[in-house]
Amino acid sequence: MSKKKTILSGITPSGKLHIGNYFGAIRQHIAIQDKGDAFYFIANYHSLTSVNKGEEVRQNTWDIALDYLALGLDPDKCTFFAQSDVPQVTELAWILGTLTPVSLMEKGVSYKDKVAQGMNPNIGLFTYPILQAADILIYHSDVVPVGQDQKQNIEICRDLAGKFNHTYNGEYLKLPEEHIVESVAVVPGIDGRKMSKSYDNTINIFAEGKALKKRVMSIETDSTALEDPKDPSTDNVFALIKLFTDKEKQDEISEKYRAGGYGYGHAKKELLGMIENYFGEARERRRELVKDMDYVRDILREGGEKARERAESVMEPIREVTGIVRHF
Amino acid sequence: MSKKKTILSGITPSGKLHIGNYFGAIRQHIAIQDKGDAFYFIANYHSLTSVNKGEEVRQNTWDIALDYLALGLDPDKCTFFAQSDVPQVTELAWILGTLTPVSLMEKGVSYKDKVAQGMNPNIGLFTYPILQAADILIYHSDVVPVGQDQKQNIEICRDLAGKFNHTYNGEYLKLPEEHIVESVAVVPGIDGRKMSKSYDNTINIFAEGKALKKRVMSIETDSTALEDPKDPSTDNVFALIKLFTDKEKQDEISEKYRAGGYGYGHAKKELLGMIENYFGEARERRRELVKDMDYVRDILREGGEKARERAESVMEPIREVTGIVRHF
Repeated sequence: MSKKKTILSGITPSGKLHIGNYFGAIRQHIAIQDKGDAFYFIANYHSLTSVNKGEEVRQNTWDIALDYLALGLDPDKCTFFAQSDVPQVTELAWILGTLTPVSLMEKGVSYKDKVAQGMNPNIGLFTYPILQAADILIYHSDVVPVGQDQKQNIEICRDLAGKFNHTYNGEYLKLPEEHIVESVAVVPGIDGRKMSKSYDNTINIFAEGKALKKRVMSIETDSTALEDPKDPSTDNVFALIKLFTDKEKQDEISEKYRAGGYGYGHAKKELLGMIENYFGEARERRRELVKDMDYVRDILREGGEKARERAESVMEPIREVTGIVRHF
Repeated sequence: MSKKKTILSGITPSGKLHIGNYFGAIRQHIAIQDKGDAFYFIANYHSLTSVNKGEEVRQNTWDIALDYLALGLDPDKCTFFAQSDVPQVTELAWILGTLTPVSLMEKGVSYKDKVAQGMNPNIGLFTYPILQAADILIYHSDVVPVGQDQKQNIEICRDLAGKFNHTYNGEYLKLPEEHIVESVAVVPGIDGRKMSKSYDNTINIFAEGKALKKRVMSIETDSTALEDPKDPSTDNVFALIKLFTDKEKQDEISEKYRAGGYGYGHAKKELLGMIENYFGEARERRRELVKDMDYVRDILREGGEKARERAESVMEPIREVTGIVRHF
């Protein structure tokens, strides 16, 4: 096994990716893809906890694959695959479940949140942290870059790995580092709240033409008149512009805001140009990829093979020590 | 697929099999092995909910295999395999879990009983009925011969299959028949309570010589003197004798009980002879099998292949309809 650190991240296929996803996670995934031994997987088993429409789950899976490849994920630099191509994951999840106190799951913050948001309280959702732990542990992952909201789940993962190792008296599972990504600037949606699919306030990365323009033009602003000075620090358009610009450009636009005579419409048009420019190349690449889905499938197939190989090398000693026979 | 009904039964490897297991289940398993398309599996993943010692789980697995083969299971007549040779089972369990309300598991009688008996309330135990449902549904089982204590779990299995079919609008999973085996006469242990490993009152099927004799001789009886008449209907020894004898022989021994001058010691000696005679051939066969573990492994390997093939044929359309991609 390589001495490089194993970096693990899962992406739940739950619809079109938006600018919030990009600046919150995807950009980092791409940036660190060659900084270690990166395993990125499309968490399709997880997505079943909320989506019961097969066509949607499948389409979301392909969309994630296309989006990531278009945005710069390089299959030669990292292992990119679908969760469902690694059957060892649900096997390990069952084994970890036999060591997981029911009370630990009952304390799960993200389960409670999801149910409070109206999601169906099903066992998949309830035991989500166990499958997530299996996803991490099955590759001997060292680093799992997650946000603050996933802190508890990483702690559960470490707990379960520690409990397994203690119960079976050996270092069978590797505890991932506690590595919480410093919260990037929250990306506001077009209504000013955090950009999120559930608020229907997103600007999708691969939206184009009229659809994109309509979305950008409907960003909520205050009613300061065109000719009056404006405060960039409280404006949603400016908050988004900041994501696409360097300090110099930001200062230049701030200046215009404060000077007056520069309306929100102007700012939105600048933002629109920035988005189109920023993602232009990715859009072009995505259009090409869609024409060659066999190539995309081959990438997931090859990634799956590599991931299964690693997973099996971790599972074999686990089966041995738990007394689980296997004849194939 | 064969038009014969698929019969499914799982055997949890949890220690030496005893006479109670034999007359309660094993005898029926053997008797119906060619009455349909029988799938019998050793439920080793389930056993992890209570046993965390690998050597014990593995040994129990081999013991079950040896015991069943010695007692007449014929691998040419049925499919005999280890649960862990069918990875589709934990995959289906995860998928079913996404459709299982947490509240349904909370109502689980057998979970509550086990926890009341002092077992560890872990997620494996809590979600046991889901893995059990997957075990049944993954082979399109028609008949699952279980006792009254498993009635609720079969209902849960039917519920989950129905819910899956309803959610995905098709007959993807086959609902097993509700087939509760009429309770066979409860086999008393040496202390008169139901024979059960947890009461430490068992007579093991493959106990021999002094160990067996000691066990039989310590069956609890009342203190009626040798010369006095005895009531066979209230005696533990006679209850066991009945299992090994036909009506005629039973009447003959009843007669001796009632006549007096026939002590419990005499009855125990008769019982000992019956046990040795009844299981003599199986014991001989087991001794031979132990010498050829490669043969035993091959049986499980071949059974596993057949079971996986069936399981995969059931899972493929399920992956398709849930939108779960697979590339191998």
